[in-house]
Amino acid sequence: MSFSISQAAAQAQKAARQVANLSSVQKNTLLTDIANSLLEQTPSILAANKIDLDEGKKNGLDAAMLDRLSLDPQSIKGIANAVLEIAAQVDPVGSISNIQRMASGIQVGKMRIPLGVIAMIYESRPNVTIDAAALCLKAGNAVILRGGKEALHSNLALSESIKLALKKHNIDPAAVVVVPDTDRKVMNELMTLNQYVDLIIPRGGEGLIRFVSENSRIPVIQHFKGVCHLYVDSAADETKALNLLENGKTQRTSACNSLETLLVHKDIAATYLPKAAALLAKHQVKIHACEQSIGYFENATAATEDDWHAEYLAMEIAIRVVDDYEQAVEHIENYGSGHTEVIATQDYSKAQAFIRRINSAVVMANASSRFSDGGELGLGAEIGISTSKLHAYGPMGAESLTTEKFIVLGEGEVRS
Amino acid sequence: MSFSISQAAAQAQKAARQVANLSSVQKNTLLTDIANSLLEQTPSILAANKIDLDEGKKNGLDAAMLDRLSLDPQSIKGIANAVLEIAAQVDPVGSISNIQRMASGIQVGKMRIPLGVIAMIYESRPNVTIDAAALCLKAGNAVILRGGKEALHSNLALSESIKLALKKHNIDPAAVVVVPDTDRKVMNELMTLNQYVDLIIPRGGEGLIRFVSENSRIPVIQHFKGVCHLYVDSAADETKALNLLENGKTQRTSACNSLETLLVHKDIAATYLPKAAALLAKHQVKIHACEQSIGYFENATAATEDDWHAEYLAMEIAIRVVDDYEQAVEHIENYGSGHTEVIATQDYSKAQAFIRRINSAVVMANASSRFSDGGELGLGAEIGISTSKLHAYGPMGAESLTTEKFIVLGEGEVRS
Repeated sequence: MSFSISQAAAQAQKAARQVANLSSVQKNTLLTDIANSLLEQTPSILAANKIDLDEGKKNGLDAAMLDRLSLDPQSIKGIANAVLEIAAQVDPVGSISNIQRMASGIQVGKMRIPLGVIAMIYESRPNVTIDAAALCLKAGNAVILRGGKEALHSNLALSESIKLALKKHNIDPAAVVVVPDTDRKVMNELMTLNQYVDLIIPRGGEGLIRFVSENSRIPVIQHFKGVCHLYVDSAADETKALNLLENGKTQRTSACNSLETLLVHKDIAATYLPKAAALLAKHQVKIHACEQSIGYFENATAATEDDWHAEYLAMEIAIRVVDDYEQAVEHIENYGSGHTEVIATQDYSKAQAFIRRINSAVVMANASSRFSDGGELGLGAEIGISTSKLHAYGPMGAESLTTEKFIVLGEGEVRS
Repeated sequence: MSFSISQAAAQAQKAARQVANLSSVQKNTLLTDIANSLLEQTPSILAANKIDLDEGKKNGLDAAMLDRLSLDPQSIKGIANAVLEIAAQVDPVGSISNIQRMASGIQVGKMRIPLGVIAMIYESRPNVTIDAAALCLKAGNAVILRGGKEALHSNLALSESIKLALKKHNIDPAAVVVVPDTDRKVMNELMTLNQYVDLIIPRGGEGLIRFVSENSRIPVIQHFKGVCHLYVDSAADETKALNLLENGKTQRTSACNSLETLLVHKDIAATYLPKAAALLAKHQVKIHACEQSIGYFENATAATEDDWHAEYLAMEIAIRVVDDYEQAVEHIENYGSGHTEVIATQDYSKAQAFIRRINSAVVMANASSRFSDGGELGLGAEIGISTSKLHAYGPMGAESLTTEKFIVLGEGEVRS
């Protein structure tokens, strides 16, 4: 029997109504049971994961890819714990805000409700399957999970744990669909099903995200690249600014919230840059420097236009000396990717102005760009980081998987 | 010199940065000057409007269309007053919410910011040109206005008033673009310019909205039809339920928040329906009734499946008797358009359950569906009513034309 994505999506929409009406307690018990089920099913999950790993090796996947794909009892425990943390979060659904009485007599407020059906299209990490399912369920949604073909056996085994828990709670198993057919045609069809699916979140390479954005009839939340900037102002505290540079660039280079460009005010360059050079040399960071800064570094290459756009995701950084605050802001407006930008300054008014003016998803004064993630910003688990402004901007937690309706409480009022 | 939409959009994006940084006072003074300018320019606006009306008559536009197109000194005063009301509203931009200190020491909050560039695609009413421009400016955005070809001269004349005010405030005139070329090719190109435009709002017939939704690479906010329901529960106050029916169906039939379907609990049908029949007969409302209700009406026709989906926008209604509350809810879930639904009941628990369960954009207990608009719900002017759940759901005011970024205030904290 062949898999029909349109049928699965139609069933998911039906199941979504049931999930939307679960109480917070029911959802939390369900999530706890999913976590327990994952622990109990560890042997079969690992067996399925071994099939994916063996096929991956046979197909020549590189070591990094195999590492991302690989599960072990410890990582499964970690995935289960993440589900328990999601269960422990506040339920965003049903909260009512801003009830006001209008001149007509009616009371008007807003109530948070689930979106409906959410589709995730993602690449090889199998933990996304569980994280995304747990967050979507927490927010009262059904979810369609289309992972990469490299992780298919793992994803299907993980989804069995979810199905067991759904069954125990008499919830329609169509509430969580792992797409068993990773053919591109199925994904393409999924993107047309706007009568059933309310939101698509692609997670993966830029090519995947662009493809989905350009072809989907369903609203897409995009996470393009993170070209994060640190601007060291003339009034910066140099020690803080060095710590922010070290932590932002070197703590985890593969993360999208790592620094890619350092901007330094010309008045502080002569004292700050030599220290920055020593620090970056210690971490063997490759330097792409502008004309005014290149002299401070050994073995630096001259920065080109491409470097200002680059997301290195490696021990590599672009460095530019700017004439003033305004030039720094303009550089960020021209080259930023809308992810995260940091100012290091002790000047109250410049910190305020930067926070107000820069319209990236996360704007910081005197804090490391590495804090730009759901956990550190207080959202709990995150389903992605939006760099598009519509609906959600920045790290997205459970609340970003909901919307608000208006509610009106009257006593028979009519409009005159 | 031919018009280039991509060049206009690129310039609008640049202008948007300037508009985003205007203070509330600057924006309000600008809007006041636009209102004054409209009044001063009344003669040239009316002259341009006459060209459109003459061409419209020559091209055989019907009376309703010509009426929507027509301006006079009184209607221009009304448009100017609407701009002054928008100026008087609270500025959504810059408001900060929810600042919390995290375990790491950083303070995290959210700040409301403009979306950037908003494109409106709309049909013949020229007042939309000014309403939309004023709301977009209030929310700190640039705007591209692509109206119908029937209203082109009027729209261009109206935009002159805006340009004069922008000039007076040294604001880039590219902040408000009225597309002078109404060729479909230009509109089609506009929908691909996702590097410049952040949101498209189509307003008009279902065909236009569907076309834009299916072809745009830019996020679209849709307003499809309003099939609004009144459910008269067994515990309804009959007088209130009759008033809600009369006001909802007959006050302004052409509005999308008018009632199209009446659902009546079987236990109240025998007393409520004869009164409803008399009331609807008084307004000469055409009835499409189910088997159980048809006997209460003279000259009713039997309701078909199509009637449950119908947005009549006329003195016409579909009526169904339901066995219980659950059947009413299911009917709304199956046939509703996600716009506005009303329950008439004095039963506390059923009112609560209805408000909680029905996930249309506006859900009411004991109030007329006609209250479902921006003004009556306290938003001030509205730019449209979204029936899609992403980003905004229901009537959209200035706040719906903004998004939120995260802001982080630190003292040099780094991530461990």
